[in-house]
Amino acid sequence: MIFNTSAQLDYSVNGESSILASVKCLCSSSQRLISENFTTSRQVELEDLEVDSAVGRSTRIKVLESGPLTLNYQAQVETSYEVVEGASLAHPILSDLTGAILPFLYPSRYCQSDRLRHVATDIAETESSAFAKASSVVAWVYSHINYSIGISGPSDSAVDTLLNRQGVCRDFAHLAISLLRALSIPARYVTVYAHQLQPQDFHACLEAYIGGRWCFFDPTHLAPLNGVVKIARGRDAADVAVANLIGDIGNSSFQVSCDCADPSFQPLTQQSLHEKGQAIIFS
Amino acid sequence: MIFNTSAQLDYSVNGESSILASVKCLCSSSQRLISENFTTSRQVELEDLEVDSAVGRSTRIKVLESGPLTLNYQAQVETSYEVVEGASLAHPILSDLTGAILPFLYPSRYCQSDRLRHVATDIAETESSAFAKASSVVAWVYSHINYSIGISGPSDSAVDTLLNRQGVCRDFAHLAISLLRALSIPARYVTVYAHQLQPQDFHACLEAYIGGRWCFFDPTHLAPLNGVVKIARGRDAADVAVANLIGDIGNSSFQVSCDCADPSFQPLTQQSLHEKGQAIIFS
Amino acid sequence: MIFNTSAQLDYSVNGESSILASVKCLCSSSQRLISENFTTSRQVELEDLEVDSAVGRSTRIKVLESGPLTLNYQAQVETSYEVVEGASLAHPILSDLTGAILPFLYPSRYCQSDRLRHVATDIAETESSAFAKASSVVAWVYSHINYSIGISGPSDSAVDTLLNRQGVCRDFAHLAISLLRALSIPARYVTVYAHQLQPQDFHACLEAYIGGRWCFFDPTHLAPLNGVVKIARGRDAADVAVANLIGDIGNSSFQVSCDCADPSFQPLTQQSLHEKGQAIIFS
Amino acid sequence: MIFNTSAQLDYSVNGESSILASVKCLCSSSQRLISENFTTSRQVELEDLEVDSAVGRSTRIKVLESGPLTLNYQAQVETSYEVVEGASLAHPILSDLTGAILPFLYPSRYCQSDRLRHVATDIAETESSAFAKASSVVAWVYSHINYSIGISGPSDSAVDTLLNRQGVCRDFAHLAISLLRALSIPARYVTVYAHQLQPQDFHACLEAYIGGRWCFFDPTHLAPLNGVVKIARGRDAADVAVANLIGDIGNSSFQVSCDCADPSFQPLTQQSLHEKGQAIIFS
Repeated sequence: MIFNTSAQLDYSVNGESSILASVKCLCSSSQRLISENFTTSRQVELEDLEVDSAVGRSTRIKVLESGPLTLNYQAQVETSYEVVEGASLAHPILSDLTGAILPFLYPSRYCQSDRLRHVATDIAETESSAFAKASSVVAWVYSHINYSIGISGPSDSAVDTLLNRQGVCRDFAHLAISLLRALSIPARYVTVYAHQLQPQDFHACLEAYIGGRWCFFDPTHLAPLNGVVKIARGRDAADVAVANLIGDIGNSSFQVSCDCADPSFQPLTQQSLHEKGQAIIFS
Repeated sequence: MIFNTSAQLDYSVNGESSILASVKCLCSSSQRLISENFTTSRQVELEDLEVDSAVGRSTRIKVLESGPLTLNYQAQVETSYEVVEGASLAHPILSDLTGAILPFLYPSRYCQSDRLRHVATDIAETESSAFAKASSVVAWVYSHINYSIGISGPSDSAVDTLLNRQGVCRDFAHLAISLLRALSIPARYVTVYAHQLQPQDFHACLEAYIGGRWCFFDPTHLAPLNGVVKIARGRDAADVAVANLIGDIGNSSFQVSCDCADPSFQPLTQQSLHEKGQAIIFS
Repeated sequence: MIFNTSAQLDYSVNGESSILASVKCLCSSSQRLISENFTTSRQVELEDLEVDSAVGRSTRIKVLESGPLTLNYQAQVETSYEVVEGASLAHPILSDLTGAILPFLYPSRYCQSDRLRHVATDIAETESSAFAKASSVVAWVYSHINYSIGISGPSDSAVDTLLNRQGVCRDFAHLAISLLRALSIPARYVTVYAHQLQPQDFHACLEAYIGGRWCFFDPTHLAPLNGVVKIARGRDAADVAVANLIGDIGNSSFQVSCDCADPSFQPLTQQSLHEKGQAIIFS
Repeated sequence: MIFNTSAQLDYSVNGESSILASVKCLCSSSQRLISENFTTSRQVELEDLEVDSAVGRSTRIKVLESGPLTLNYQAQVETSYEVVEGASLAHPILSDLTGAILPFLYPSRYCQSDRLRHVATDIAETESSAFAKASSVVAWVYSHINYSIGISGPSDSAVDTLLNRQGVCRDFAHLAISLLRALSIPARYVTVYAHQLQPQDFHACLEAYIGGRWCFFDPTHLAPLNGVVKIARGRDAADVAVANLIGDIGNSSFQVSCDCADPSFQPLTQQSLHEKGQAIIFS
């Protein structure tokens, strides 16, 4: 499936400063970059950067002079995925996890999995397989957290969301990731562009490592699972901020779009996969 | 300087399980491994492992049968270091940090630097250079936190330590790291063996990235800075636990030693370096 | 039923200081004081005091000279109670609560009922009557929290206990009280002497206001409900500490006893009342 | 000095419900009620109520029918006060505090004074008298917290405000009260109407008990200290909410006014009293 994505970020820069932007689409075996274009409204210094704590394609923009600055990104991307039966996915064998997977079992800034072991056990205790546990965690988060913009803040973490029962995609993902790790299922945070997301915005989802595969989930149920284009992934939002600002930079506004080039696009919803006991995997 | 280090970890294993131990000494340009020996009290499966979130040499021990298990490690290591004038170290230029350094600016599970910006600014506001800021943060933590065993717990983080004013080396390191990151100074958690540490135990310190170098600090003032042998480093204790246990494993006890082979060893104390405005660097 | 209670508190006093002790038995229509005796091991100034935030009989002890000090209290008390069918107790009508009851609906230091509305609703959502809700909250706390001495600390509150799932009587009471208030059921903290409590200690329970009566619950299941002699009650432990120490006072040890004078005492357990849908009320 | 105050509260009521409003002016030796008028836009049941946890004049409004409801209150009040030299106020002698004062030393929901002892000591350590400590705490809160509407929420407490350094009058008061209690100075939360407050709103301040008197402080510096008309006081905002709503009630808006009848009113500012080392007391 081919998607056209775009992002426009507007800043007001005051003095020498820099922006570390994470808006470029990931390149992987399941996500092929056909073309992309990154432009700025005026002369700045651009640098591609790989940051160790995340998998993604960051861009560092150094700005020497004050004034407005707009970043523009467009890409055409082809994604592929697989839908598998959850029942076919074995439980992760902790003693066989590689050093690349293990960090996704550990607690992180916004995902205090060490404090949520009992809550996670309560939620998933009747399930036996890892996939069923993960599926019930994601369903619990969807049904117990109220999607609500403007309530949660940037320092809120999984424990806050568990108590407040309100938040945005970031909060949904952090809580679900924490509960999964608490159940010994590795889980990671993924930022995406999402076709048919209303309103269009950067979106956050998660992947859980089950049976040797990374299964993709959206606990908000807002994005079609086959309509996402991945940007970056890490342990939580601390690793994959869309933009880290250094210096006196303000008044940002965002515009995001993601459109499927194929008019016959049929959304695969989190709800339908949950009901069928299936998982979507971007291998 | 040559050090002989050892660690003995005793476990009582109940059923199939595994241990991810991080006790082997780091190998680097400033820490040369002369010899080492890792043995177990009975037949188990051993695997060397590099975990992505830390720099260190982990060992995975798979145990199939119940019963007591003892791990023994001895190593002879030669370390070298440099003492530099703090005044010679420039402020880190955030916009030039590499992707390997940037993650040490981000908040992590036990280091909520995003919540401590104002406290950090209060502590270091009269200092102008990055080294002076770092030095005053470490001195503040030393003088305001009471070293006290048995009060803090594994889920305590920098905010707790800031309020409770009590803790062990781990808590001192987490608080100092958080304050440093809040001041835009990259900082990382380092586990070490430490000569003359009383009582002998695994110890936690930190490194701050200033002027392109990683300066080593011990906010507890308990270890001679030139008497440490490094084991591993990461964003915080979540990344570099001495042992992660999977399965039903209990009753652990530890014995640790670290001795300098040179009888003329002269300790460089954190206090004396602080007073002289100097930094120790293991390049 | 007649009980003989005693408490001995040993202190080491250093300089002029004072102790506000809350060890005397309450006097009420359901708890008649037959005799009591309060002595100190040396000459001090004693004052009876009623503290506005609690119902209880505090004693202020002013100590002018350093040295050991022992407080001794013995009392003989007759208690009476009523066992009623929970089904007979109506839901509290919030708009009819008096000004004496309303504060027990509000959050307090260790009972953040405002943060636990959703958790409380999850626990009791299938129950319709206030008594059934209260009963299920107490049963949930009993079955989900592990009684464990030495884990929780004096600054732990209901949210901590909810996550950690461990604590002592104080923690059990705080969590249950918070959940009750979150369900709009007034609830208060009660300190007691308890016959057959093993080991003997001061104990904390709670009362919930249902159908115009204060129903007594012990979420730890450790005390026979008809074996308690009340000391004081308030919004939470901040209001009814056994002893508030002012000055340099240390090394305290406690000895407590509570014995029923009637050898045929038959314990009414929390478990049995729960199963029968009954409530115990000290009118 | 004579003030005319008014409050209008607009609600949209959905079904049988009730409102517990705390808008009437306090009557005391320093605040004489000349006249007052409480009306409602339609027929409801009104009841005067004294709630044990606060000193104030609550009004319970029972509403049987759905629809809009407006509460209107006007009062004319004469207040008197005294300005004293802070140096004349002795330190509170803890062992002489009465049972009416002691609860204001204890931690409460939003004032976790037990967690802030070290921070409070840091702030006031160079001061010797209780008044100087209190004065420096209030000045510290004023200079370190940024008055900012829409950032803090109803579950934020003193620890949050200490870290976030942002909030409204309620947050300023909670933090200052907590720090005062942590220094063993009793402190209470006071809601007021305030002349010349911009924009007009209900306002929260505090009183600290020093030398046997309750000294009034406004850590926001927004109200003239001699321009306040008191409504209610308690341990913190949990005790003295302007309105507690029971049932399905929404869409509230507030309008508040407080005007001095004397055109020659000269404001006494917190800043000027602080500089002169003086305290204002409503005896």
